[in-house]
Amino acid sequence: MNNVLDDLDFQILVHLQKDGRKSFTEIADDLKVSVGTVRNRYNLLIKNKTLTIIGRVDPEKIGFNAYAHIFISVRPADQINTVAEKIARLPEVSFLAMISGGYDLEVNVMCRNNEHLIQLMNDKIHKIKGVFETSTNMYFRVLKIAQPALNLVKESLSYSPKI
Amino acid sequence: MNNVLDDLDFQILVHLQKDGRKSFTEIADDLKVSVGTVRNRYNLLIKNKTLTIIGRVDPEKIGFNAYAHIFISVRPADQINTVAEKIARLPEVSFLAMISGGYDLEVNVMCRNNEHLIQLMNDKIHKIKGVFETSTNMYFRVLKIAQPALNLVKESLSYSPKI
Amino acid sequence: MNNVLDDLDFQILVHLQKDGRKSFTEIADDLKVSVGTVRNRYNLLIKNKTLTIIGRVDPEKIGFNAYAHIFISVRPADQINTVAEKIARLPEVSFLAMISGGYDLEVNVMCRNNEHLIQLMNDKIHKIKGVFETSTNMYFRVLKIAQPALNLVKESLSYSPKI
Amino acid sequence: MNNVLDDLDFQILVHLQKDGRKSFTEIADDLKVSVGTVRNRYNLLIKNKTLTIIGRVDPEKIGFNAYAHIFISVRPADQINTVAEKIARLPEVSFLAMISGGYDLEVNVMCRNNEHLIQLMNDKIHKIKGVFETSTNMYFRVLKIAQPALNLVKESLSYSPKI
Amino acid sequence: MNNVLDDLDFQILVHLQKDGRKSFTEIADDLKVSVGTVRNRYNLLIKNKTLTIIGRVDPEKIGFNAYAHIFISVRPADQINTVAEKIARLPEVSFLAMISGGYDLEVNVMCRNNEHLIQLMNDKIHKIKGVFETSTNMYFRVLKIAQPALNLVKESLSYSPKI
Amino acid sequence: MNNVLDDLDFQILVHLQKDGRKSFTEIADDLKVSVGTVRNRYNLLIKNKTLTIIGRVDPEKIGFNAYAHIFISVRPADQINTVAEKIARLPEVSFLAMISGGYDLEVNVMCRNNEHLIQLMNDKIHKIKGVFETSTNMYFRVLKIAQPALNLVKESLSYSPKI
Amino acid sequence: MNNVLDDLDFQILVHLQKDGRKSFTEIADDLKVSVGTVRNRYNLLIKNKTLTIIGRVDPEKIGFNAYAHIFISVRPADQINTVAEKIARLPEVSFLAMISGGYDLEVNVMCRNNEHLIQLMNDKIHKIKGVFETSTNMYFRVLKIAQPALNLVKESLSYSPKI
Amino acid sequence: MNNVLDDLDFQILVHLQKDGRKSFTEIADDLKVSVGTVRNRYNLLIKNKTLTIIGRVDPEKIGFNAYAHIFISVRPADQINTVAEKIARLPEVSFLAMISGGYDLEVNVMCRNNEHLIQLMNDKIHKIKGVFETSTNMYFRVLKIAQPALNLVKESLSYSPKI
Repeated sequence: MNNVLDDLDFQILVHLQKDGRKSFTEIADDLKVSVGTVRNRYNLLIKNKTLTIIGRVDPEKIGFNAYAHIFISVRPADQINTVAEKIARLPEVSFLAMISGGYDLEVNVMCRNNEHLIQLMNDKIHKIKGVFETSTNMYFRVLKIAQPALNLVKESLSYSPKI
Repeated sequence: MNNVLDDLDFQILVHLQKDGRKSFTEIADDLKVSVGTVRNRYNLLIKNKTLTIIGRVDPEKIGFNAYAHIFISVRPADQINTVAEKIARLPEVSFLAMISGGYDLEVNVMCRNNEHLIQLMNDKIHKIKGVFETSTNMYFRVLKIAQPALNLVKESLSYSPKI
Repeated sequence: MNNVLDDLDFQILVHLQKDGRKSFTEIADDLKVSVGTVRNRYNLLIKNKTLTIIGRVDPEKIGFNAYAHIFISVRPADQINTVAEKIARLPEVSFLAMISGGYDLEVNVMCRNNEHLIQLMNDKIHKIKGVFETSTNMYFRVLKIAQPALNLVKESLSYSPKI
Repeated sequence: MNNVLDDLDFQILVHLQKDGRKSFTEIADDLKVSVGTVRNRYNLLIKNKTLTIIGRVDPEKIGFNAYAHIFISVRPADQINTVAEKIARLPEVSFLAMISGGYDLEVNVMCRNNEHLIQLMNDKIHKIKGVFETSTNMYFRVLKIAQPALNLVKESLSYSPKI
Repeated sequence: MNNVLDDLDFQILVHLQKDGRKSFTEIADDLKVSVGTVRNRYNLLIKNKTLTIIGRVDPEKIGFNAYAHIFISVRPADQINTVAEKIARLPEVSFLAMISGGYDLEVNVMCRNNEHLIQLMNDKIHKIKGVFETSTNMYFRVLKIAQPALNLVKESLSYSPKI
Repeated sequence: MNNVLDDLDFQILVHLQKDGRKSFTEIADDLKVSVGTVRNRYNLLIKNKTLTIIGRVDPEKIGFNAYAHIFISVRPADQINTVAEKIARLPEVSFLAMISGGYDLEVNVMCRNNEHLIQLMNDKIHKIKGVFETSTNMYFRVLKIAQPALNLVKESLSYSPKI
Repeated sequence: MNNVLDDLDFQILVHLQKDGRKSFTEIADDLKVSVGTVRNRYNLLIKNKTLTIIGRVDPEKIGFNAYAHIFISVRPADQINTVAEKIARLPEVSFLAMISGGYDLEVNVMCRNNEHLIQLMNDKIHKIKGVFETSTNMYFRVLKIAQPALNLVKESLSYSPKI
Repeated sequence: MNNVLDDLDFQILVHLQKDGRKSFTEIADDLKVSVGTVRNRYNLLIKNKTLTIIGRVDPEKIGFNAYAHIFISVRPADQINTVAEKIARLPEVSFLAMISGGYDLEVNVMCRNNEHLIQLMNDKIHKIKGVFETSTNMYFRVLKIAQPALNLVKESLSYSPKI
């Protein structure tokens, strides 16, 4: 798990979490290590997929006005993996997870408008074999999208004497 | 809204969505425009917050083992803005939105483990005045996290004659 | 109740249900009665509020893009009349009724968009004292709005020998 | 959308919303335009279905004593369009829409009494292939039926400098 | 409907509601009519099933310790009449009705104990074709079983001038 | 409990369950015991409230057209006894019990019509302090009202060697 | 039932409930009876399964970090016994019961972690024919696991004069 | 956590899980270690509460006929710890845990009968300040109560190369 991550890794992640294009030189200066060290660590973090640098686009700014949350029940329930794979391939799907509670899957979709959303539901999602029941709700206003606060993990590490 | 975005903006967004550190030279080459044009457009997209370059960290890789979904009802309901502000400030909160249906707010939190989660619930969220009812479910397995597929908007643009 | 309505009244209602501006001359011709009779019956139906001639405006055509259904629970429940009066006064409300089941009131609202809707919820409806719990759902697509089919009542009338 | 509607159209709609039989002369006088202009605008609004003049009949006055709200789940959900078409054809149905949340369709029906309603449910609606689950509630008392308040859209228009 | 019932019928019903074995002589004395009149009215009320004289047995006193309330959903819903007929025949069933809301049937059953109840559910009710879903709750303590208070109807009759 | 009931008591109960006015002579003849024995047993059964002879009136026949089922939640829940006492006193209440599941009380009420029912809810039940939440459903059609089938208990008695 | 248990049995059960390895000598001393009597009673209690001496292992201490509660609906419901037998055989299942309410079975499972749990759900439980719907919740923190307090039964015994 | 447990500890736990009174001599013989080693390990396992030897009493055998499952919502939710402490002290409570989902606490209680249960609810649990809502269901039949299958953890240990 996190046994490959030392304190320097965390510091580099903290820098890049906020500004993904920060230059290695700046990071190296700040952390008092060589640029080569930052680059090596960075390459490793990218390689094992601990880190991904993405350009996050504000969906409302580019015209996605219907952002919805969908709970899905799969029946028979043993088709859950097949259903999940098909849903994951839909380009409107921005989040997909297996979840506890009365439903099997939680899906987030971004659509241009309600008409696009109802078409996605009727013509794509409901047509997937195994999708038994859906419950859709609209996000009226998104108030926070954030990366995990890294210090929450470090804080807990301080409880264990040596790592 | 999207009246400031022309086709070139979209192409640049598509490039950066997947690799946020792609050099302007590469993008300019691909799109057959000057590096200066890419840089100008990039700066504008960043400035008006259409684009943000972030380093996304895989929460499981760094030790967040309890990723949960929480629905919150606020009572009296006119305290919803105050409650939302306080919840947005919690570092464990990775997503917060107002949502349709029987609850008022949807929250996603990332915690080290179940014990951290129950402490967050009991000592922080339940202590916020106006939090009346919560329903918590665990994400067992995240199967997709994706940026909005930009072509979904462009496709729709083709319906309107001129923009 | 319906003891004032005879067969002629029904025929006139059937004519006006579909085209509220149909001239009395046309109706009189069709029903083989004098124009004066039609006018008298019409005036009576209007006066006792059995009939209202309205210009129904298509909400989507004029820019109402968020049409929503809201269930409301009132607590303490003895404030239901006061709450209902206040909700009835909101211009966005197009339907309001007391209903069986787990909620007390059903409300339909027409808003310009999701932002208008969430403002209506947070700044108006949730601020009404006694509104305890709301559950909001969006109408994605309206497929039928119809007047009651008058023959359904007439059919039943045929069971009773004379009225 | 609403780009064909100018301020004069709105004024004419406002007049006809309340009294669908108001004469064009009266409207023209009030708005200081010629009767021909009002008639032309009226014809256009009728033609593109922005406006419909109907005679609304009070259901209770003519003997519909069981007015009910029905939620319907369609399974398999891809039959939703077929089911909706069949339900729309039932004369008792006064409203039909696709809706967000846990159900697929919302239906309003007007029946003579509870016995008529249970016959409609058992002999018509439940017999439609694809109707999987229904939840019925009675409207005890209707408190408001209203047209959309047109100024709500105009108000919002004032925010944008020029249209 | 109740057009055959006059005031004397009501008075006789009130007498017999409480004590089903009250002698006609006593009733006649109290109402100042002849015994023959009471007998005639009684026979008519029995004949048209307005009245039934039963010996109600206290279930707990004779050993029914598990008194339960069951909601049943029928699927496909058009089998509701067939299912209802089969359930009505079970001797444990003391009440059966079609009901509004999310379920189709409400059933009350009286069993000797929880074991008898679970056997009834598993071996009888769940085996009926069309019984799709059941929700069972136990009556912990019955606080009132009463006949309809007849004056509630008479009270309303006073609103109508003559009957 | 049922230790006072022997086989003769059961036979007498069976006779009176169906016809509460059956003469002691007929019962005695049928059971081959003296009339005095039947009368003594009868008096005891009446005295210890194992048996009550009532005249059951058909509510629909006399004008109760709205027969409803109400679930009630009491808050604070320690007021359940006080609330139950007040509800038991309402003449419209024909059944009242404490029940398992998410609600505290189940109530059945018989009203003249929907308007009477909504008045009962708003003006009486919701005004009782402690009534927090109600869920009302209409009985559309009652299909069976029955006394407990006495042989169900006797059948089980046959398992025990001697009674 | 409990007719074989006298006061001495209860006293012995109370001793062993807390410390299953308490020696017969100690118990005999405390209860002022011979060791042989304690041993005889003990053997009988073990033989008729009133008592079982087990070593209870704290699941968290040995590495079960995902302790979950699962409600299961069985469809068709007449397969409930077959389904229950298969679920009882899963080694992760620590509790299984038929339960009232909207579900048929309640199951408790102990898993190493969320991944183990989701595998158990998808690969084992959902694959059992007849498992129609599941609702899973996590136990965040167990606060009490206790044996039934024996005096609760004895207390009630004091109400009956002789046993 | 489980770093103190080696393979020998597991073998001892497996022996005592099934028969809590198995003599150390037998266990030592079976595992080919000295009795002293078994005793030392046992004492450590008892001391750090990994193991408890209890005499489990079959509740039905001694007269607990109403075994129920209760979900509790606490309001205001920050009183959850206080409420939990009070509930834990009730002798009828055999299980208490904080749980995910819409409720805060899950409780299992063992009562003599339904009357004892309803008294416990009304006179004890509902009287605890902060208990806002309860949902009670009856266990009709318990089919399995089991200790965690220890090999499930050992199996997983084999995935990690060295421990």
